Amino acid sequence: MLGNFSYVNATKLYFGDDSLKYLNDELPKYGDNVMLIYGGGSIKKNGIYDEVVAILKENGKNIIEDSGVMPNPTVEKLRDGVSKARENNVDLLLAVGGGSCCDYAKAVSVSINCDEDPWEKYYIRFEEPTCEIVPVGCVLTMAGTGSEMNAGAVITNHEQKLKIGHVFGDEVMPKFSILNPKYTMSLPKRQMTAGIYDIFNHICEQYFSGEDDNTSDYLAEGLMRSVIKSSLIAVDNPEDYEARSNIMWSATWALNTLISRGKSTDWMVHMLGQSAGAYTDATHGLTLAAVSLPYYRHILPYGVAKFKRFATEVWNVDPEGKSDEEVALEGLKAMEEWMEKIGVKVTLTDLGATEDMIEGIADGTIILEGGYKVLTRDEVVDIIKKSM
Amino acid sequence: MLGNFSYVNATKLYFGDDSLKYLNDELPKYGDNVMLIYGGGSIKKNGIYDEVVAILKENGKNIIEDSGVMPNPTVEKLRDGVSKARENNVDLLLAVGGGSCCDYAKAVSVSINCDEDPWEKYYIRFEEPTCEIVPVGCVLTMAGTGSEMNAGAVITNHEQKLKIGHVFGDEVMPKFSILNPKYTMSLPKRQMTAGIYDIFNHICEQYFSGEDDNTSDYLAEGLMRSVIKSSLIAVDNPEDYEARSNIMWSATWALNTLISRGKSTDWMVHMLGQSAGAYTDATHGLTLAAVSLPYYRHILPYGVAKFKRFATEVWNVDPEGKSDEEVALEGLKAMEEWMEKIGVKVTLTDLGATEDMIEGIADGTIILEGGYKVLTRDEVVDIIKKSM
Repeated sequence: MLGNFSYVNATKLYFGDDSLKYLNDELPKYGDNVMLIYGGGSIKKNGIYDEVVAILKENGKNIIEDSGVMPNPTVEKLRDGVSKARENNVDLLLAVGGGSCCDYAKAVSVSINCDEDPWEKYYIRFEEPTCEIVPVGCVLTMAGTGSEMNAGAVITNHEQKLKIGHVFGDEVMPKFSILNPKYTMSLPKRQMTAGIYDIFNHICEQYFSGEDDNTSDYLAEGLMRSVIKSSLIAVDNPEDYEARSNIMWSATWALNTLISRGKSTDWMVHMLGQSAGAYTDATHGLTLAAVSLPYYRHILPYGVAKFKRFATEVWNVDPEGKSDEEVALEGLKAMEEWMEKIGVKVTLTDLGATEDMIEGIADGTIILEGGYKVLTRDEVVDIIKKSM
Repeated sequence: MLGNFSYVNATKLYFGDDSLKYLNDELPKYGDNVMLIYGGGSIKKNGIYDEVVAILKENGKNIIEDSGVMPNPTVEKLRDGVSKARENNVDLLLAVGGGSCCDYAKAVSVSINCDEDPWEKYYIRFEEPTCEIVPVGCVLTMAGTGSEMNAGAVITNHEQKLKIGHVFGDEVMPKFSILNPKYTMSLPKRQMTAGIYDIFNHICEQYFSGEDDNTSDYLAEGLMRSVIKSSLIAVDNPEDYEARSNIMWSATWALNTLISRGKSTDWMVHMLGQSAGAYTDATHGLTLAAVSLPYYRHILPYGVAKFKRFATEVWNVDPEGKSDEEVALEGLKAMEEWMEKIGVKVTLTDLGATEDMIEGIADGTIILEGGYKVLTRDEVVDIIKKSM
């Protein structure tokens, strides 16, 4: 069944090993004050910073630097960024980095012209922007979050031990994103594989959900097969451009709203993983990896037919002579083996979680509807324990 | 390999059995003069016309009627439409119908503010619009062409015996399209199946091409599997909303540029089929069906690996103990059987072509590069003969 929905995504993408040059096509569309958003400085080491700054200068832009965006952008950083953007009357927020920089840029974009505190407005009360939104552009250096073509922005509040994502309306999507697979090659392997699991889980979150067996599911399977194939090549040879480019392109389409059209979704792996992330500050993709298998094995009985389809269509499990549940379980076993191969088979304990955090992680797990089973708090605790 | 490319598609889609109501959200964005474009009047019989007119009136629009758009819109009709649009200072072109109405609306949209003859400018000289483009919206009543979310417009010149498609730039894409699967249920079964084959062939045209085995191919396979599954259900029961909705949604994504990203394409089945269409005025999807198998069997030796993949991944052909070519041929055999099941296994002779047209159809076939084999004229003639 394909439910009723709308779809629009106006982000312009430039993809390929020559894609940065198209920044020259985009910059003239915006005013002179560009806030250049980046992380810990790796773009200075690999030369991307210099390339971007040169293009900004050639286009006569005033550059307002906003560096130090951390892997899980904090509410304090967000408030600082908003102040800096206001003081400098910025016309464009240019994020150069991974999903954290893109997410952060979007969170700033909806807060510059808004009087209220962004955490309270967007992450506690989940309101929509009622003020003018400053345009965002991205130069992506890591494949994973899909933030380059969606309207999501995850922000972490360490004081409140909450890591929360807000998916804004279409108008918050980046105006343009520049995707150069070569830029992703400078990443440490562990960040690459965490990103790959993030991509794969984005697809799973939308695949294992209500309104099954429609075109969205077929597209999701195509993406999963592409990610699996390319991930195994990239893990052996991170310099393989073809594999890295397919991973990057799959990441974009895994989370730009396409494959959730007509479906309900509960995003429970993200709800669990993000709560664990608020406690451990661990890499996002790895928190998802840690909770995935316990979660999927728990909900499998409520969605046997779909887990069976996952096994046969994504993992080529032979169903001959096996019960549906056996086939379904074999699919998860195949996924587990793949996780081992690419090096993301981890536990929350590996990521720094301790027994005393379990109740808190459960408290911070937002329980959503739309999947095969609405979890109780006891089930959440049980899944977290099994993820330790 | 995934080549370098850009991607943007800003068409807003409203999908579902309640989608027409969103016309109320779109109309206020445009001026008062709306040219209502439709075909032979079937929308008057099934009530869609009345519903659309009521919404236009509620929104205070002046309606300029432009009916009689034929299945293969002619250059004469295009010139008339342009005149009418100019005389009435139209602010929005609202196409209510199938791909022909949408294509026609786009061809009008780029010609209203252009002094030159549209056929000469866009279909002979293949120039880009240099004038202001009047916005287009679509209410789709037939699934197939993908015209609702792309910038293509096919126009036929009977005098010159040419049927030519121009794929314009992104700015020519419809601003919005309303997709209600229920509207497609009023179609005669033969039109439904012709549309289904059109969808399937759009995917094949992009799948069988250079730059193989990237994410685009995996997405294409997902779409093909979805279309095959839903087509078999819809042929048995055209009232099956689920099947019709998946067919409609697959049609949109089969030809909105996504699955050709990073690939080269030659669109030779369309080049052959459209030339046959200029001679026979036959239904577009059926002309494609008539030339497909002779064409694919001809190019198979130049792309055995991909045809093998097509066989195993799309048609579940078991490759055990068979040569690559045997597996590849079995895939085409499976496709042929499916075409028989849904009733589109036709010849050009069935569609009204006669022996004396063969040379002319070959003359009208534009030979493009980008596939597995650049055809010679002799090969074109041979394929047309085998399609008779």
